[in-house]
Amino acid sequence: VSELELLRWIRARLPRRDGRVVVDSGDDAAVLRLGRGPVVFKIDSVLEGVHFDRRTARPEDIGHKAMARPLSDVAAMGATPTFALAAMMIPREARASEVRRVILGMERTARRFGVAIVGGDLASHAGGLALSVALLGEMRGGSPLRRSGARAGDVLAVTGALGGSRLGKHLRFVPRVREAREIRRRFRVRAMIDLSDGLLRDLGHLCEAGGVGAVLEEARIPISAAARTMARRDGRSPLDHALADGEDYELLFALPAEEGPALERARLGRVIGRVERRPGLRLVRRDGGEEILEPRGWEHRFGP
Amino acid sequence: VSELELLRWIRARLPRRDGRVVVDSGDDAAVLRLGRGPVVFKIDSVLEGVHFDRRTARPEDIGHKAMARPLSDVAAMGATPTFALAAMMIPREARASEVRRVILGMERTARRFGVAIVGGDLASHAGGLALSVALLGEMRGGSPLRRSGARAGDVLAVTGALGGSRLGKHLRFVPRVREAREIRRRFRVRAMIDLSDGLLRDLGHLCEAGGVGAVLEEARIPISAAARTMARRDGRSPLDHALADGEDYELLFALPAEEGPALERARLGRVIGRVERRPGLRLVRRDGGEEILEPRGWEHRFGP
Repeated sequence: VSELELLRWIRARLPRRDGRVVVDSGDDAAVLRLGRGPVVFKIDSVLEGVHFDRRTARPEDIGHKAMARPLSDVAAMGATPTFALAAMMIPREARASEVRRVILGMERTARRFGVAIVGGDLASHAGGLALSVALLGEMRGGSPLRRSGARAGDVLAVTGALGGSRLGKHLRFVPRVREAREIRRRFRVRAMIDLSDGLLRDLGHLCEAGGVGAVLEEARIPISAAARTMARRDGRSPLDHALADGEDYELLFALPAEEGPALERARLGRVIGRVERRPGLRLVRRDGGEEILEPRGWEHRFGP
Repeated sequence: VSELELLRWIRARLPRRDGRVVVDSGDDAAVLRLGRGPVVFKIDSVLEGVHFDRRTARPEDIGHKAMARPLSDVAAMGATPTFALAAMMIPREARASEVRRVILGMERTARRFGVAIVGGDLASHAGGLALSVALLGEMRGGSPLRRSGARAGDVLAVTGALGGSRLGKHLRFVPRVREAREIRRRFRVRAMIDLSDGLLRDLGHLCEAGGVGAVLEEARIPISAAARTMARRDGRSPLDHALADGEDYELLFALPAEEGPALERARLGRVIGRVERRPGLRLVRRDGGEEILEPRGWEHRFGP
């Protein structure tokens, strides 16, 4: 890959100075004018061999995933994502066309959610392809939707079907930016988290943060077609895939029980259980029996 | 490296909620309260085999460099750095002790310059060690110090000796955060850039942005001891090293000619030449002769 040529191509695509971009990418750092409220700040990475397989993934999807992962987190805070920077680590042998396709994928997703990529960093090296995207979001009214805040008696809901993301969704998921905004506008969201580590683990985080426990109803958990496909292949149950696979990038949230029916009528979420005082996670099976659930799934992040 | 153990260690070190950290690293993203002015936003990476040699560099220095590089850029905008996120890509075979030392180095440098690391992302993979640091800075009064703005007749100055950084300074340099603040407080800085790609190349950027040219005086260019050492080894001249090596992480800036003497008396910079209307870069040699300089040096970034 010819770095210089690539840099020229990239620079031409970055936004010029305007009302909100006080200093553009032609300088040492971008300078931005943000709104008055608190600022949400997030970084997330995708690495070859960990978050994607470069031999099979479309380059555009890799770029999409790099941008969509932090978008999902910023959405889960109830914020509006606005500006991004991208650091790219590029294998020396990569073709410029591949790198351009990665960038186009990243860009398209940014644009779709109103985010301006205002700069970044590019380095070619002997290793694999990796991207880190740093994202700024703005709280436009309202408080951040924290993980804590769920209360005993609240219902728990998710925005979509779970499990089996590795079969393809993990590369092409739609970050729930718009859904988060709509849910928050219409309902009293008490706590929210994005599902990246798997329902059990992320529900565990939500319960721990709120000092509460939860009970899930097997019959209500939306299980994806991909989870069923994987279950046929590996003998694990579809439910198990839905509970533990991770990379769903759906939202999990708690709201007052009386708002559950309206949420489902609005098709903004599916109620899957409820919050209770007693710590720990339980599952009510279809047959009415109960079991204790252990948090399990992915764990590879250390904070925002 | 045991990720879970490492994550626990890292989480315990991240700041808790306070006046400015509205939501801390225990959530999907950090939420911050910033001041009123524009916000400076920068990302920069260090990669094994490109920006450091993991076999010889101290892990603390690697962490330092990862934080100090974006600090240098934010300083060059005249901003006060305040919050950072760090994405770490860790070789699977790395020991937890090595990773902890990298983090400690990063942390120490952040603290020294008043920056709170409010979260990040950690992934282990089959490749080398790499870190991306995203940094927020705040303009506390005054406008951003842009690359453009130098005028014919201004003098050009640098904050320290140049060249030979690869012998060690590139891992241990002090980002000129305090100097930038002091220079800006006391002088009418017209343009500023940090020297990462080499004096010639970065001066080229500054001239291009301002639509001007520059003449340097050989006798005034501060040449580092390391540049002389390298020159003895490779037969290139010490001056050539000072002009083109890169990774100096000093500040290059333009100010009105009449302020040059006071700047030097205050020991905040050394005047090395002046800005002129005619485009291009020239050098006045010690013997009074002149030569045309071609911008050369590093080029591996695509914007802020």
